[in-house]
Amino acid sequence: MPACDVREKPMEINNIQTDAEFSPAERDAVYRCIFNRRDVRGQFLADPIPDQVLARLLNAAHRAPSVGFMQPWDFIVVRDPVVKQRVHDSFQAANLEAAGMFEDEKQRAYRRLKLEGIVEAPIGICITCDRNRTGPVGLGRTHQADMDLYSAVCAVQNLWLAARAENIGVGWVSIIKHDDLRAALGIPASIQPIAYLCVGHVTHFLQKPELEAAGWLPRMPLSDVVWIDRWHEREASDPLLECL
Amino acid sequence: MPACDVREKPMEINNIQTDAEFSPAERDAVYRCIFNRRDVRGQFLADPIPDQVLARLLNAAHRAPSVGFMQPWDFIVVRDPVVKQRVHDSFQAANLEAAGMFEDEKQRAYRRLKLEGIVEAPIGICITCDRNRTGPVGLGRTHQADMDLYSAVCAVQNLWLAARAENIGVGWVSIIKHDDLRAALGIPASIQPIAYLCVGHVTHFLQKPELEAAGWLPRMPLSDVVWIDRWHEREASDPLLECL
Repeated sequence: MPACDVREKPMEINNIQTDAEFSPAERDAVYRCIFNRRDVRGQFLADPIPDQVLARLLNAAHRAPSVGFMQPWDFIVVRDPVVKQRVHDSFQAANLEAAGMFEDEKQRAYRRLKLEGIVEAPIGICITCDRNRTGPVGLGRTHQADMDLYSAVCAVQNLWLAARAENIGVGWVSIIKHDDLRAALGIPASIQPIAYLCVGHVTHFLQKPELEAAGWLPRMPLSDVVWIDRWHEREASDPLLECL
Repeated sequence: MPACDVREKPMEINNIQTDAEFSPAERDAVYRCIFNRRDVRGQFLADPIPDQVLARLLNAAHRAPSVGFMQPWDFIVVRDPVVKQRVHDSFQAANLEAAGMFEDEKQRAYRRLKLEGIVEAPIGICITCDRNRTGPVGLGRTHQADMDLYSAVCAVQNLWLAARAENIGVGWVSIIKHDDLRAALGIPASIQPIAYLCVGHVTHFLQKPELEAAGWLPRMPLSDVVWIDRWHEREASDPLLECL
């Protein structure tokens, strides 16, 4: 199967990865992907995504870490324009409410932003979390019950990065009520929607995140959020700070 | 600064990424990273992590997507053996409780598992979420309030993948009470801990996830969790299914 060509190497000796070392070039490709991934809203092309490529993206998501190896996710691939329109209508309703929550100048700025590409993107992918997939007690969830939700978020991020490496854009739509999304996609009440993603080829990728470029909020310096051994504590002379 | 050498390319024309295309080799490196990332518990080496490398990992986390460009995360880098021991004590207490929640054979299997490398790993990193970082109303959180937590989880996954590309192992410890973690690291009640990560070089990376290899749970076929247009619906003849 064509989707298999980039899976992990098949060699297995005592369950140890052979040839495990990443080269500097491979490392740089991973960083380039992390730094050049963008939340795409306005640059989608109608070009179809080949099923083999889409399968690779879904497989990347499926290889996310999951608490207790629970794999709590499902993936609903949305192609039907009628379904996309229903999702878009739900976004519109929520976005009107949302705009009203901001004051004055911030509200005007908010209304100028394009925040989704639901209809334009050729594919939507809804990632969900089945909180009871492996029964009432889960390894790693005994003291942090939300770890299953976090596992599904890791699947989102894996898919997003894989898409960037495939030169495909992804946008995460969160301005939508979960119950509206459930209604649009027939998701039962017992299942938690995590993300609705717009997925497609793009005219271009932006250099800076749109909200940064639009002046919505600035990029924080990394050195503002790194601490040593205790919250909000560190020596000014700590050599790590020099490297940030 | 040495940490800069793998950041995004500095060229910027109208906020568009130039030379944006990923090559097949770069794409394959990203997939290799996604597929070969492991949750490391028992293979840590004491070798120190150079500050330049650690800074790259933190920068990768900081470049995660965040809802409304909120960047809600902080990173507490734990080096002090006394602090690590305190975190480990909290894990131990929770893990004893956790084992008692499983029945019979599953409990015996649980007790055989090594689930953390808190003391052995040279570095711990606690990633937190400041839910009020940008005020009471946040873009993208008006209808899904937990998007800030999910942003911080994306930072975890970015760091985890960057670490794999640096040939460094990461293990996520979730069998610990948040309040114990707050106490160990001086985190205020208003801040939500997201992840405590054990970070270090390793003797080897495992081919299969430990819980899969130990028979705790099987890997689900991807085709069991992919649907088209609606929850649990799809045509058996859909060509996407052939590619999974």
